[in-house]
Amino acid sequence: MLAWRSMSERLESYLNGAWRTGDGDTATLVNPATEQPLAEIKSVRGLADAVAWGREIGGRNLRALSFAERGERLAKLAKVIHGHRDELIAIAIANGGNTRGDAKFDIDGATAVLASYAALVPTLGASQGQAPWLVDGEAAPLHKGAKIRAQHVLLPRPGLAVHINAFNFPAWGMIGKLAVAFAAGMPVLSKPATSTAHLAARIARIVLDSGVVPEGAFQLLLGSAGDLLDRLGPQDVVAFTGSADTGARIRGHQRVLATNARVNIEADSLNAVVVGPDVASSSELFDLVVRDCVIELTQKAGQKCTATRRILVPSALLPELREALVDRLRAIAEKTGDPADDAVRMGPLSTKQQLADARSGLADLQRHAERVLGDPTRTEFAGVAPGVGYFLEPILLQATESAAQDPSAAFHQREVFGPVATLLPYDGTIASAAKIVALGEGSLVGTLYTDDREFTASAVASLSPWLGRLVLGTEKLAGAALAPGCVFPVCNHGGPGRAGDGAELGGKTGLAFYLQRTTLQGGAAELARLLGTPASDA
Amino acid sequence: MLAWRSMSERLESYLNGAWRTGDGDTATLVNPATEQPLAEIKSVRGLADAVAWGREIGGRNLRALSFAERGERLAKLAKVIHGHRDELIAIAIANGGNTRGDAKFDIDGATAVLASYAALVPTLGASQGQAPWLVDGEAAPLHKGAKIRAQHVLLPRPGLAVHINAFNFPAWGMIGKLAVAFAAGMPVLSKPATSTAHLAARIARIVLDSGVVPEGAFQLLLGSAGDLLDRLGPQDVVAFTGSADTGARIRGHQRVLATNARVNIEADSLNAVVVGPDVASSSELFDLVVRDCVIELTQKAGQKCTATRRILVPSALLPELREALVDRLRAIAEKTGDPADDAVRMGPLSTKQQLADARSGLADLQRHAERVLGDPTRTEFAGVAPGVGYFLEPILLQATESAAQDPSAAFHQREVFGPVATLLPYDGTIASAAKIVALGEGSLVGTLYTDDREFTASAVASLSPWLGRLVLGTEKLAGAALAPGCVFPVCNHGGPGRAGDGAELGGKTGLAFYLQRTTLQGGAAELARLLGTPASDA
Repeated sequence: MLAWRSMSERLESYLNGAWRTGDGDTATLVNPATEQPLAEIKSVRGLADAVAWGREIGGRNLRALSFAERGERLAKLAKVIHGHRDELIAIAIANGGNTRGDAKFDIDGATAVLASYAALVPTLGASQGQAPWLVDGEAAPLHKGAKIRAQHVLLPRPGLAVHINAFNFPAWGMIGKLAVAFAAGMPVLSKPATSTAHLAARIARIVLDSGVVPEGAFQLLLGSAGDLLDRLGPQDVVAFTGSADTGARIRGHQRVLATNARVNIEADSLNAVVVGPDVASSSELFDLVVRDCVIELTQKAGQKCTATRRILVPSALLPELREALVDRLRAIAEKTGDPADDAVRMGPLSTKQQLADARSGLADLQRHAERVLGDPTRTEFAGVAPGVGYFLEPILLQATESAAQDPSAAFHQREVFGPVATLLPYDGTIASAAKIVALGEGSLVGTLYTDDREFTASAVASLSPWLGRLVLGTEKLAGAALAPGCVFPVCNHGGPGRAGDGAELGGKTGLAFYLQRTTLQGGAAELARLLGTPASDA
Repeated sequence: MLAWRSMSERLESYLNGAWRTGDGDTATLVNPATEQPLAEIKSVRGLADAVAWGREIGGRNLRALSFAERGERLAKLAKVIHGHRDELIAIAIANGGNTRGDAKFDIDGATAVLASYAALVPTLGASQGQAPWLVDGEAAPLHKGAKIRAQHVLLPRPGLAVHINAFNFPAWGMIGKLAVAFAAGMPVLSKPATSTAHLAARIARIVLDSGVVPEGAFQLLLGSAGDLLDRLGPQDVVAFTGSADTGARIRGHQRVLATNARVNIEADSLNAVVVGPDVASSSELFDLVVRDCVIELTQKAGQKCTATRRILVPSALLPELREALVDRLRAIAEKTGDPADDAVRMGPLSTKQQLADARSGLADLQRHAERVLGDPTRTEFAGVAPGVGYFLEPILLQATESAAQDPSAAFHQREVFGPVATLLPYDGTIASAAKIVALGEGSLVGTLYTDDREFTASAVASLSPWLGRLVLGTEKLAGAALAPGCVFPVCNHGGPGRAGDGAELGGKTGLAFYLQRTTLQGGAAELARLLGTPASDA
């Protein structure tokens, strides 16, 4: 035991302006394919000073920069991180169980959010992004004929943004949230999930060493969250990505309730795709369905909050879709293993516990659905000794048409966070599809494949309120389509109900979480002069 | 006892399409000036059916109307309620302890919100308000050069809007919330505060008898909330106005946390006004300060969530402002009594408990501030026998400059919900004023009186994040200014932290609470055709 311990890197938190090792519990980070230890983390106790330092020093320094200047810093950060891309990919493969493609998806996703907000924020602020506020909408008379106007403005909240991220996207999760908070003008204290924190810790060091981020504007907390939530104040915000249970604990935390600190949650969800009744098995659109479903099952070994879990397909088309998926997934099952090998197409789950949870979830799913591909007990995988690594091969299940409509069926209730999805046959009407999608009680994303415009219009009206994003796949654009699990910075990321009822990214709307909207109530000419907006009919 | 019971009106809830008397606990509504009983309410047990009926029948019927049609219905409702104005004023005077002016403020406020949203919503929807969605912003390419676009749309949530209102605005609270939810397309179940529910119950009957509201779109629950929160689902929303404690109980309710039902809170707050260092005692602006402070102390006997509680004044000006306020408030103290008498200028508090709470809060305030006007133990008031009624005369307190900066001072922590405010001297710098305002930890509204443009610009930057609304009072517009406690439908209503971190009204932004924002991701031409938006460079 001592031998590997001495070889293992000790990762450090960055708090109150210094790198430090904690004196709390120790966690060991491993390679989930080989189970080899990679690094250690010791939790930090007592975060009151770090919270105050970020809120005061970081907040002051960030607000001293204009929106435009913050945009320039984000562009620099994108370049700095991109400059370390190869090193970061290697860490993601080792600690994240990522294939090379999975690693790029996470790391390039992070730089994409930085670049997107770098381009966006200078266009938003009054006076070419130089004013300390964003002007929101137009001035309105208080009432018909009133001389006094109401003008909404948005200003950065003078608190701390606490970011608590999930294990599956250590780069994109941390940097995506940082980009938006930084653009808005709020300092960040970021806590990555421990099991895959090696990548986050390395990126944090690159970010902090770059000198691009003002003092106090970014802190890194490794290990447990300690007393972090107990230190929250009324201007602080918490953005959390992870399980619904932890999300509920944060939202229901005594200090959150007492201060009304703002909370945003991105949680588990049971994302669905709906194959329209017009999709023929020989079409390009059918091929797109197959391609997307395979990506969404196997990218990052299905460990994405946006991965497809439920595949609604007209009953008549089910056999053909099942066969096509089984063929493609079987080929990936054969190439599941240690992603250090470039021939491997799917890596392991992130932790032993994740594998145990996935297996127990699968047993639950099989109470209402039949397994048509995959063996959850398989123990031999490419590049590792039998029984080593937290592997799960792709699993496809299939329900009956009546089970698909059963609200108590596990595939509507429980997300198995791995390469697992269930085929749900339906009668081809949008009414049935909408009913089945809604049984998931709120999802981050849904996808519709159809060329029928009427079906699309009905689907938009009936599916959208259950989704944060609805992807429309058509024959014409099949070649240009992107897999639905990929979240772009211009798109809303967050869904109602089970998905946490949060909202991240989405261009300008993502900034709102970090800003206070205030009505300025005053004379029309005075407001226009103050805000640099066009004078109205004062 | 039996004698008055038989004379007292039994008020009914409207649930599942029928008026009904509950079989739970009985509450008696009284006239708070005379303590005479006016009406009785029996709580209803078991609300599962009402919740389901509203969500399903009401939701379906409301969504079958376009935004434009819902706007037309709101305009009709405004007329219907206005047609009963005299009758409603009489009820507000009797059960609410309102003067005639207070009653108009509440009732006309309700019709103003209806009229404002009636005019707004037809302008928002695509296709002249005929489409089932609102288009939000413009379509953006997913990334540079991408053929696929992201377009945000807003659709009504297919759930129930639960409205839980405070005792101080039975008309405006219930109808203001209803107007916004109805405009957005969500059915409402409204629970007024019991003590002043007579007015809400009468208005609800007028609304329901009018036939303007589709079946299921509006229900009234009198008495306790029973098991209402236990029935919430993932698409439901709860908008609450009242105490911070109750707000925290709602936000932390197990079912709210389990479903992520959306919650909006408007809670107690310690609203401040800041008198700028340039305000001279002989100016019109000084007169405006005095007029506004007097209105905000005494309108509705100070029982407004937007009432001024803290008056920041440069130390040198404090004696003059105090004398002016004392003069004006003393005149109102002499005319405090039963508002059934037209000569009375201020009525009682709403309940015996409110009076006890205000007296206990006053004792707390006096630990850090000195009482300069008013006797909380006074028992003789106009038009009633000595000791009868829940009266409190206007109370003005004054702190020292150093006490004003003490975060633990009760005037920064505890809202006394009555005709009570504290003068807080400061050094005339915006830095000091901002620090003192922030000690209130978030307020619904703040007011700034100054003609100094630099002071104003600094104040907007430093005060706004602590406020939902900032009123700018200037010499030039003193004649046109409206007292800061008046909330117009175009203005954001809600403040950070202590104020609940909510957002109501504010024109279009108020609709967002009842809508789900979803990204539609698809081809540019397809999206434009589907949504009726201008075709972009597809």
